[in-house]
Amino acid sequence: MRKRLVVIGAGPAGLPVASQVRKETDQFDIDVITDRQYFSYSPCGIPFVISGMIKSFDNLIMRGKKHYEDMDIFVHTNTLAESIDTDKQIVNTNRGSFPYDVLVIATGVKPFVPPIRGVDLKGVYFMYSLEEAIELERGLKDSNTVTIVGAGAIGLEMAYAFRKRHKDVIVIERSPHIMGSILDPDMSSIVEDYLLSSGITIIKDTEVTAFESENGKVSAVITSKGKIKTDMVLMSIGVRPNVELAAEAGIERGVTGGLVTDSSLRVRKNGRFMSNIYACGNCIEVIGGVTFRPTLSGLGSTAVRQALTVAENILGTNTVFNPIVSPGVSIIGDLEIGAVGVNSKRAIENGIIPKESIAKGLTRARYFPKGEIITVKILVDKNYRLIGSQIISKEGVKGRIDSLSFMISRGVTAHQLALIETSYVPPVSSVIDPITIAARKLIGITRDKFTMPESMDNST
Amino acid sequence: MRKRLVVIGAGPAGLPVASQVRKETDQFDIDVITDRQYFSYSPCGIPFVISGMIKSFDNLIMRGKKHYEDMDIFVHTNTLAESIDTDKQIVNTNRGSFPYDVLVIATGVKPFVPPIRGVDLKGVYFMYSLEEAIELERGLKDSNTVTIVGAGAIGLEMAYAFRKRHKDVIVIERSPHIMGSILDPDMSSIVEDYLLSSGITIIKDTEVTAFESENGKVSAVITSKGKIKTDMVLMSIGVRPNVELAAEAGIERGVTGGLVTDSSLRVRKNGRFMSNIYACGNCIEVIGGVTFRPTLSGLGSTAVRQALTVAENILGTNTVFNPIVSPGVSIIGDLEIGAVGVNSKRAIENGIIPKESIAKGLTRARYFPKGEIITVKILVDKNYRLIGSQIISKEGVKGRIDSLSFMISRGVTAHQLALIETSYVPPVSSVIDPITIAARKLIGITRDKFTMPESMDNST
Repeated sequence: MRKRLVVIGAGPAGLPVASQVRKETDQFDIDVITDRQYFSYSPCGIPFVISGMIKSFDNLIMRGKKHYEDMDIFVHTNTLAESIDTDKQIVNTNRGSFPYDVLVIATGVKPFVPPIRGVDLKGVYFMYSLEEAIELERGLKDSNTVTIVGAGAIGLEMAYAFRKRHKDVIVIERSPHIMGSILDPDMSSIVEDYLLSSGITIIKDTEVTAFESENGKVSAVITSKGKIKTDMVLMSIGVRPNVELAAEAGIERGVTGGLVTDSSLRVRKNGRFMSNIYACGNCIEVIGGVTFRPTLSGLGSTAVRQALTVAENILGTNTVFNPIVSPGVSIIGDLEIGAVGVNSKRAIENGIIPKESIAKGLTRARYFPKGEIITVKILVDKNYRLIGSQIISKEGVKGRIDSLSFMISRGVTAHQLALIETSYVPPVSSVIDPITIAARKLIGITRDKFTMPESMDNST
Repeated sequence: MRKRLVVIGAGPAGLPVASQVRKETDQFDIDVITDRQYFSYSPCGIPFVISGMIKSFDNLIMRGKKHYEDMDIFVHTNTLAESIDTDKQIVNTNRGSFPYDVLVIATGVKPFVPPIRGVDLKGVYFMYSLEEAIELERGLKDSNTVTIVGAGAIGLEMAYAFRKRHKDVIVIERSPHIMGSILDPDMSSIVEDYLLSSGITIIKDTEVTAFESENGKVSAVITSKGKIKTDMVLMSIGVRPNVELAAEAGIERGVTGGLVTDSSLRVRKNGRFMSNIYACGNCIEVIGGVTFRPTLSGLGSTAVRQALTVAENILGTNTVFNPIVSPGVSIIGDLEIGAVGVNSKRAIENGIIPKESIAKGLTRARYFPKGEIITVKILVDKNYRLIGSQIISKEGVKGRIDSLSFMISRGVTAHQLALIETSYVPPVSSVIDPITIAARKLIGITRDKFTMPESMDNST
C-alpha cells in the first residue's frame, strides 16, 4: 500500500518537495495543502510586474492544478490547516482531514504587523503573496503618493517599481541607513544616492507612530519627524516565521522564532527529533555558516535547496542541510546589489570584530564601451577568514557573489582570495578582479585605498 | 647606491613588474627594454578594434614613455636585447649595454611559423602585436576574402571581426573540431553553429600545404581538400615561448619549451636556480593545477599575476606562484565562451579518464525578458574531483568560470559543488544554477539528461 505524504504549504519549499519525491517514486500518495488561491508562482517577480517590466502577474504563474494532477500530486487550494495531531498523524483543515505517514511543514512566513494605530486601514498594504500584490496593484491605480515603511531590499525594489509608474514615492526607515540588515553604511550610501537620483524621497531615522484616515482610507503617516500625506502605504518591515500551527502541535521553535530541525530537517517535539515530520523553507531556523549560530533565511533559493534535502531524506538517502551564508542579489532599477555572509553590524552582534576593505574597479576593460563601476567590500575576521562581502554595480554582481558564497562557506582566507585566478576578456572584466584588489588591500600587499594599482589596470 | 633592475619585455608581464616595484621602493634604477615600438596596450582588445566595436588602436594604448619617466621608470623602445651575460650581469642590446643587479625576462611569445611554401608572401599575416595588427588593418582595406588558418579562440575572434567588416571569411582548421584546445566537441559545436549562422565558412579536417601568389601577393590557399582563392591570410595556429635570448645565455627551458622557474619564478642555469634573474609571462612554463605537470599559459591575466609575484619577490617577500587552472573567456560576436581546467582531450593525454555532464539552463527567470540559454559542462576525475568546465552563453559566463576556477584549484568535488549556495534574482539568474544541476547529474541525484528538473525551475 502507498504511504501518504502531506505537505502543508505550496510555496518555493512545499511544491518542490512534492514534485521531487514524485519524480523518484510512486510509493506515496501526495497531497499539498495551501490556504491560498495562487501557487506555483514567483514571488520574487512581483516588483517587476508592478514596475511594468513584466507584463502581467499571470507571467509569474508556472503551473496549475492540472499539471500536478497529471503528476499524481493533489494541490488543495483555499484549504486552511487548522491543527496537526502528531499522535494520530492527521492534519485537520477547514475542508476535512488529511492522514499522513510523512508530513512536511512548509508554511513560510507572514509579514510583521506592528501594533500602531491605523495599521488595519484601507490603503495600508502588507505585500507578501500574489493575492496581496494583486490587491495592491488595484489600489495603485487611484494613488499618486505612495509611502513605503521600511527600507529593506523588498521595500526598495517596490519603491523603484512605484517610481517607474510615475508615483511620488516616499520611503520611511527607522534606522540611520537603508538596507541595514545586509549592507554596511558605506555601501548602502551608493544605493541611497541612486534612489535619490531616481526621484525617490528617503526619510531615515524616523519612526512611524500612526496612520490617519479620510473617508475610511489611509490619508497620512504620522512619524516621529512629522506628518506625511499619502494615498497609499506599503508596509515592508520584515516577516516572521509562520509557525503557530506547528507550535500548537507541540513542535518546537528556536531562539529565532523559526522551527528547530536536525541537520536532516526533521522537526523536534518534546526534545526529540521526529522521524516522520520534516520542515523546510523560511519557517525554519537554520545555522549561519559564518557565526555557526541559529538564524533565519528569507531567501527563496534557500527554501528550494531545503526542499531538495527534505525530498532526498524522504526518499531514504541521508542528506544533510549545511550551514548557510545566504548569497543574495537585489535589483533596483539597473543597480545590482549583492551581499553574502554577514555585514559589519551582524558580525559585531555575533562577537566577531571585522576587518574590512573596499575596492572599486570597472566591469569591462577601460577602453571598452559601457563599462560600469563596481564596488566590492569584503570582511574578514581576526584570522582573515572571509565572513562577508557586499558588491554593487550595474552588472557582474551575481557571479562574484556566488564565488564568494562558496569561499565563505569553505572558510577561505583573504590570503587565499588574493591568489585567485579569474578570467579576463575586455568586454566583461578587468585583468585583476576588484575582489582580488580588495583582498590584497586587506592583507597589506596593495596599499592605496580606493583605486586600482596602476599596474593592475586593463593593460592586457 | 641604488640597485639596477632591468626588465626585458614591455608587455603584460614586464611593465607591471617595473611599476609594482617602483610603487613600493625607490631603491632601484628601473629600465625596461623592448624591441617593439608600442607598449602599454591591450593585445586582447585588438579583435574589437578590427571589428569596429572599439574606434581605434589608439584606444588600446594606456600610457606613454612620459608617464613611466614620471614614475622614474625608463622604457627603451626599438631596443633589441641581443645577449645576456649572466656572469658580468649585463644585457647587451643594439643600443648599448644595460648592467643589472636584478634581471627580469618577460619576452612573451612569438607566432609559430609553419614551414610551408609561400608563408612569407605579402598578404599573409601573423598577428601577435599592435604593429602587426596595424599592418593587417591596412591590408584589410583591399581585401574581400579573408582566410584564417587555425580555429582557436583568437582566430575565431578575428574571423568574427572580419565578418563584421563585411568580408567573406573562411576558416581552415586541421582538426575535426574548432577550439579543440579548450572545448570538447559537444561544446565547440555550439560555437560552430553560431559562426555558421553569422555567415562564416568553416573548413575542418583540412591541412594547409602552400600559398599561391599573384603579383607578389597571396592569392590562394592550397589545402589537402583543394584550392581556396583568397585576398588575405591570417595565420593563427599558435605561439611558442620567445626564449632564444635566454636559452643562449644558458638559462634552461623545460619540456614545453618555456623557461623553467622555481615557485618564486627565478630561472635555472646549470641546474641551479639563480637568485637575481626572474622570468614571468607567457615565456615561462607553469604547473597545471589539474595535472600538476608543466604546461604553458597563453593568458595575459596569468602574465600579470606572475608579474605581481616577481615584484613581491624582488621586494623581498617570499611569494609563491601557485599552479594554474587558466580560467578564460572568449567573446565571439555576442557569444561568451568560457573554459577552465582541462577539457576531455587534455585530461586523457594526462592519464585522467574524465566523467562529464552537461546541463542547460536559462540566465534569467523563465518569465523574464531576454534570458539566454546557458550550457554548462563539468568534468571530474574518477574521485569526482573537478578537473574542468566549459560554459557557453550570451551572458553570465565570466562569474561562473571564475567560481569554478577557484573550486578546481582547491580540489573541490562534484558532491561539494552540488551543495553550493548561489544567489537568485529573476533578472540575472535561475533558482538552482545550471552548474549545480550539472553537478547533481554527475553524482546521480538528478537524472534527466538535458533539462532542468521541474522542481528546480524558476518558481521563486
